[in-house]
Amino acid sequence: MERIRTTQLREHIGQRVILRGWMHNLRALGKISFILVRDGYGIAQAVTQDENVLAALHGAHDESVIELEGAVVAEAQAPGGVELRDIAVRVIAPVTDTPPFPLNKPTVNATLDVFLDHSTVALRHPRKRALLRLSAGIMSAFREFLNGDGFTEIQSPKLVASATESGANVFAVDYFGKKAFLAQSPQFYKQIMVGVFERVYEVGPVFRAEPHDTTRHVNEYVSLDVEFGFIENHFTVMALLTRLIRHILARLAEQNAAALQLLDVKMPNAPETFPHIHFRDAQQLIFEKFGEDCRGEPDLAPQHERWLGQWARETHNSDFLFVPGYPMSKRPFYTHPDPADPKYSYSFDLLFRGTELVTGGQRLHRYEDYLAALARAKYPVEPFAYYLDAMKYGMPPHGGFAVGLERFVMQLCGLSNLREATLFPRDTHRLTP
Amino acid sequence: MERIRTTQLREHIGQRVILRGWMHNLRALGKISFILVRDGYGIAQAVTQDENVLAALHGAHDESVIELEGAVVAEAQAPGGVELRDIAVRVIAPVTDTPPFPLNKPTVNATLDVFLDHSTVALRHPRKRALLRLSAGIMSAFREFLNGDGFTEIQSPKLVASATESGANVFAVDYFGKKAFLAQSPQFYKQIMVGVFERVYEVGPVFRAEPHDTTRHVNEYVSLDVEFGFIENHFTVMALLTRLIRHILARLAEQNAAALQLLDVKMPNAPETFPHIHFRDAQQLIFEKFGEDCRGEPDLAPQHERWLGQWARETHNSDFLFVPGYPMSKRPFYTHPDPADPKYSYSFDLLFRGTELVTGGQRLHRYEDYLAALARAKYPVEPFAYYLDAMKYGMPPHGGFAVGLERFVMQLCGLSNLREATLFPRDTHRLTP
Repeated sequence: MERIRTTQLREHIGQRVILRGWMHNLRALGKISFILVRDGYGIAQAVTQDENVLAALHGAHDESVIELEGAVVAEAQAPGGVELRDIAVRVIAPVTDTPPFPLNKPTVNATLDVFLDHSTVALRHPRKRALLRLSAGIMSAFREFLNGDGFTEIQSPKLVASATESGANVFAVDYFGKKAFLAQSPQFYKQIMVGVFERVYEVGPVFRAEPHDTTRHVNEYVSLDVEFGFIENHFTVMALLTRLIRHILARLAEQNAAALQLLDVKMPNAPETFPHIHFRDAQQLIFEKFGEDCRGEPDLAPQHERWLGQWARETHNSDFLFVPGYPMSKRPFYTHPDPADPKYSYSFDLLFRGTELVTGGQRLHRYEDYLAALARAKYPVEPFAYYLDAMKYGMPPHGGFAVGLERFVMQLCGLSNLREATLFPRDTHRLTP
Repeated sequence: MERIRTTQLREHIGQRVILRGWMHNLRALGKISFILVRDGYGIAQAVTQDENVLAALHGAHDESVIELEGAVVAEAQAPGGVELRDIAVRVIAPVTDTPPFPLNKPTVNATLDVFLDHSTVALRHPRKRALLRLSAGIMSAFREFLNGDGFTEIQSPKLVASATESGANVFAVDYFGKKAFLAQSPQFYKQIMVGVFERVYEVGPVFRAEPHDTTRHVNEYVSLDVEFGFIENHFTVMALLTRLIRHILARLAEQNAAALQLLDVKMPNAPETFPHIHFRDAQQLIFEKFGEDCRGEPDLAPQHERWLGQWARETHNSDFLFVPGYPMSKRPFYTHPDPADPKYSYSFDLLFRGTELVTGGQRLHRYEDYLAALARAKYPVEPFAYYLDAMKYGMPPHGGFAVGLERFVMQLCGLSNLREATLFPRDTHRLTP
């Protein structure tokens, strides 16, 4: 007899099958005992009144790994409308201790810190693992869209000789007695690879040594990076990003319906064209709304981003809002300026429900422009020599963006802390598990 | 007029089209000039006798980014059997210098070191980028197979508090004044996640601070990691790995035919069942063949692995050979011993054309076994506490493996140095580009 998955039970009504998984719950109602078994895919119920069956489970705590053999019977009351009866049980790996907290309650009843301390077990909770399943779904849909659009995947090195963005907030590594750094982003490499493949993407870890703990930041996260050539300007990039986001959401709805339902996710409104408001106009709107004059500030405050998100929902029926035109002063040196007003840039943020999800834009592509930009920023040229070579030997107008994977899950599921969407988060206080 | 790809030209015979890309070559035969344009996908030829057209290219060196508009004409002599005539040219980004070495010769005429120094440009060479396209193809087929087999993708942290395998050869990171390390593998995390999803995989960087420079090692590489539960023993793992390798090879043949052809790749023989020879028997064979008595040694020498590869090809018509049963003394503490002879393990190497491509096996899954194994290895328990928790609270018999991405490309393409298959390799001497 082949073992089947709990999610396949319905296809086997009237047959005897084998299930294997973790004992999610065991409870008695009078003489009837209900065993819930959780495998990698779902949860199934088995029912018995047989003392011998229960004797096999004697001393086995929740989370014991078990095998159930039984007859599949339709039963409206059971989860999934089907249950196992006339069962035999075998314990594959007994658990002799009570788990740190119950995994079979509807929600995890623990503070975030306690949850994270025990996450190597606690992530088995159906709601918690559903979040990670959505992460996997986002990565898969991201790659699917880009593969279909002529992009090539790259995996660039994470050990680098110099900082990517500004030299601040990088982790230093002892590299055979020399100093190396952990890449803050694959930015330079993905641009270089536009010279090779024209259209590239990367899914991988990035490292930010930011010393502040906030609910929206961790020090290592997964970045979904895209870069492509032969663009008109940053609006070409925004158009591709829009199609990508819509593809990801459509795929999640199709392929991760169970996880979305378990987490009560309200799918976002993602219109065919996302609304956009220039940074300058966003500041003007905020001024008119709040009377706070942030015009001239180089960035938007989180509470103003949240309000802009609300504004986009109310006036454009969209959970996504592009804010193009960030001031050059706050953008990295490779950012393309707005030729009509070089104080502003051809870069953008994409807000998802009022929180920054994506940063992107058009980059410089002319060698001379890079030399000028580095001089303006008072950076030395030498550490960037290999990167500048790619620009010197022919680079088309190009741009791209980076999506924070955990941010996406956080905003999609309405989580209050990015750590809930992060597999084993790293912050200033936490390096394990 | 929409821009099309060079690889789409044949579908547009008789029409006028736009191509954009890099000027791969410009040469004159008498009055006729041939322009080769390379985009992210292929190379196309344009022909002109018009002095005004050529004037537009005056001073533009190879690798200049150009746009060509012209009429698509079938021409048996042209690459791909089609060329552009009656053309107009526009230079999008001129190159004013000669590239470090020519990218339009059949092979790159430079030593590996010179090539790597200039790789941010030199990777544009069609043969070089074909290698990276194969890497992308392998990753894509790897995920496709596993997604179809009920696996969930994870992305585990690369910053860790303690070494994964043995404490040797790890890179140390300054983590907010504390010491952290770069993960040598996602081993512990993928095992932990078997408790959550049953079947998991990860594609990501791993870091090995090995101080030796060999042609088969670099210090950062891409590891394709798999781990899954409810196995019988390491043969269950080997069977899944066999199906996976065969799937990857079949997909490459289908989807990367152009790259394989360009690189003159002889596709390997990968029979439905790969032959296997127990480590002990392999040593016996080597003894009989060479008279060198390596019996009792805990590992195979590279030249002996190469010979075993040859033996598998000759006697089993297979480019792949499993060597299960490595001695426990050389395997990490979590390795499952052979119950019948606990000096040997339930772990294996997979040789591809005589070089180790994959290491894998069954792991311990009982908490008590872990405590005993750590005690035997004289490791403290505390740094592993989070990992042991996953074992304590119910873990099925499980196992997995790790495939080296660059190794796969190296052996597939018959490269003599792993660096040729690595995007911006890191070794003791090299940290840029």
